Amino acid sequence: MDYQYSCSECGAAFDFSPQLMLCPKCQIFQKDNEPLRGILEVIYNDGNKAQTPDALWPVDAQILQSVPSARSPLWKSEKLEKATGFKNLWLKDDTRNLTGSYKDRASILVATIAKKWNIKEIVLASTGNAASSMAGIGAFWDMNVTIFLPETAPRAKMVQSLQYAARVINVAGNYDLAFELSLQYSEKYQVLSRNTAYNPLTIEGKKSGAFEIFYQLGKVPDYCFVPTGDGVILSGLYKGFYDLYKYGFTNNIPIMIAVQPDGSAAIYYALQNGFFTPIAAQTVADSISVDVPRGGYYALKMLQKYGGKSVTVSDEAILNAQKELSGTTGLFAEPAAAAAYAGFLKMKANIPQDADIVLLITGSGLKDIDSAMHKVDFPKKSIRSLDDLE
Amino acid sequence: MDYQYSCSECGAAFDFSPQLMLCPKCQIFQKDNEPLRGILEVIYNDGNKAQTPDALWPVDAQILQSVPSARSPLWKSEKLEKATGFKNLWLKDDTRNLTGSYKDRASILVATIAKKWNIKEIVLASTGNAASSMAGIGAFWDMNVTIFLPETAPRAKMVQSLQYAARVINVAGNYDLAFELSLQYSEKYQVLSRNTAYNPLTIEGKKSGAFEIFYQLGKVPDYCFVPTGDGVILSGLYKGFYDLYKYGFTNNIPIMIAVQPDGSAAIYYALQNGFFTPIAAQTVADSISVDVPRGGYYALKMLQKYGGKSVTVSDEAILNAQKELSGTTGLFAEPAAAAAYAGFLKMKANIPQDADIVLLITGSGLKDIDSAMHKVDFPKKSIRSLDDLE
Repeated sequence: MDYQYSCSECGAAFDFSPQLMLCPKCQIFQKDNEPLRGILEVIYNDGNKAQTPDALWPVDAQILQSVPSARSPLWKSEKLEKATGFKNLWLKDDTRNLTGSYKDRASILVATIAKKWNIKEIVLASTGNAASSMAGIGAFWDMNVTIFLPETAPRAKMVQSLQYAARVINVAGNYDLAFELSLQYSEKYQVLSRNTAYNPLTIEGKKSGAFEIFYQLGKVPDYCFVPTGDGVILSGLYKGFYDLYKYGFTNNIPIMIAVQPDGSAAIYYALQNGFFTPIAAQTVADSISVDVPRGGYYALKMLQKYGGKSVTVSDEAILNAQKELSGTTGLFAEPAAAAAYAGFLKMKANIPQDADIVLLITGSGLKDIDSAMHKVDFPKKSIRSLDDLE
Repeated sequence: MDYQYSCSECGAAFDFSPQLMLCPKCQIFQKDNEPLRGILEVIYNDGNKAQTPDALWPVDAQILQSVPSARSPLWKSEKLEKATGFKNLWLKDDTRNLTGSYKDRASILVATIAKKWNIKEIVLASTGNAASSMAGIGAFWDMNVTIFLPETAPRAKMVQSLQYAARVINVAGNYDLAFELSLQYSEKYQVLSRNTAYNPLTIEGKKSGAFEIFYQLGKVPDYCFVPTGDGVILSGLYKGFYDLYKYGFTNNIPIMIAVQPDGSAAIYYALQNGFFTPIAAQTVADSISVDVPRGGYYALKMLQKYGGKSVTVSDEAILNAQKELSGTTGLFAEPAAAAAYAGFLKMKANIPQDADIVLLITGSGLKDIDSAMHKVDFPKKSIRSLDDLE
């Protein structure tokens, strides 16, 4: 399929090159503490000829799917149906991806393009899942991966990256510093950046979730609840549904609901106010904890254009949702992923009970055992005989 | 399909009942510190009429598969092929099961039978994966699960069980005491036991791995490397391959290789000596650490009958194999699962390079981050600028 880049702000068109990241014109207006300016979209010049959605990729879909079991299950649970009263409440279970998170979708596309262009190394800044995802996909595809990781990243995700033999560089600072150093590194050593939102392929890769849901349901759903931090998973899903719409595979775009923690709600506030204000994030849901949502402008534009909504949930509600989801489905989600269910619970009074609803379950609970401990009651004593049972 | 139980020791036949666990005749000879006597097999009276292997279940195969994505991927990696020189080295990736381990296969069948017989509660003793697996499958199928867990069980697996809303009872003692108390509990409260090896359905459930490999490869492989503790996964795979053979779907049974840690090698020694000697187990691979292998007699009989082998590997070799597997495939396995690869590396000089070889990857590395830390090098310092990179 023939494709190019188009700026999501000014609409300027660019030929694809793996080094091109943001629109050079809009990038001039970039300020500190703001989402990225000039995020690029992939446009298919001959997309109308696509016989199936799988044609709408900048690489051969077969190559994408050569990563083991790239397609995650979509399923529902009777017990969850009883608990909520909703018949068609679907779980898009990305805990089953190779590295246990939705981020594999972006990593796979970036790695594929790197391979196609004979680039041997990928660099990124990450607080956790993107790092371990890129490391794992890099291990599968024989690609060197260098990660700039803030010191505060969760231990499990760091160990996972190291197990995958990535080069992990600890940064004495936050994600912003890690991001900046990773850009300097990619320029100095001429390697490919997989920084989320910054590399347009991260958005394009994440659209695979939308295509899969469409294949699995046989149509697009009515609602999607998406755990939202930097806005890139949300944007990727929008891009996927929009491609399906634009190229004639469906007449609808789902109502997307960006679920954010109370303590990391930049996109929520921007949707209310029309502009972004930097706020220091604090939430148990580390994967969606961001001061400045890098993909914010694009996500906001999509939400505004297609009537999307946003909802905030407390950490307490997230942890309760995590426990309830585990106990009613057997699906153990990390806090960020459970936020999708928390958001649904907050909104459900306004949703028809027969609607097709998809909750994006974006990461495995095994990645963050410490958070999962908050809402469980440990046995208070150890027993030696059944008589010791109260 | 019409089926009954048959004693694997004396051959006596019994009608199926969910309460029947071991052969009452052979059970009389049970001694302390020995594997279980009188393990029962499921025999299909009309198995020869089966059109597909899926007919060879004591329940409708459709019900088994209603658990989300019950079939795990079988895949290989180019990078692993380069590292080993073996073209057809397959990974049966059971880290992708609902709860992240092979144990789901037994839990699913036991839960299905409980549902069929209208039993509301399942009890088991476990050191970890069987517990979290039964808890997760129980959560999916609305079944109460009670777990007797030795105090020393790994924390991640305990938290996982509690997240799934299982009742976890800590036992001030080892697996033997937990096992004993769980039996007393199942009798006192008339609930179904899922104790591994003890409930014949645990073996029958674990045969699904063999069926899947057969479907996925289009034939049975030449070799299977199986992480082995109590011998029940090994026995389950044998039962599956044997059913395929017995009922005419294949003419071969693979050469099975039971891989055991140096520090927990009861089945290995029994294969050399012909008898079992209890030895206190000690290994980093907690999922296959057992003093007395409950399913030992049956596993030993199968190994002897079908020319199986056993190999031991050091903890050092296991942890190196874990790291090498992560770095060459993107598959992050827990130590017990990585033992399959360690065993393969030890044996590979005697295996033809074009043989079809399956490594059973039985559990996710995210379940035991502490062990995964042994072989990774943490960054020694944090940097503030690229100049700080050496």
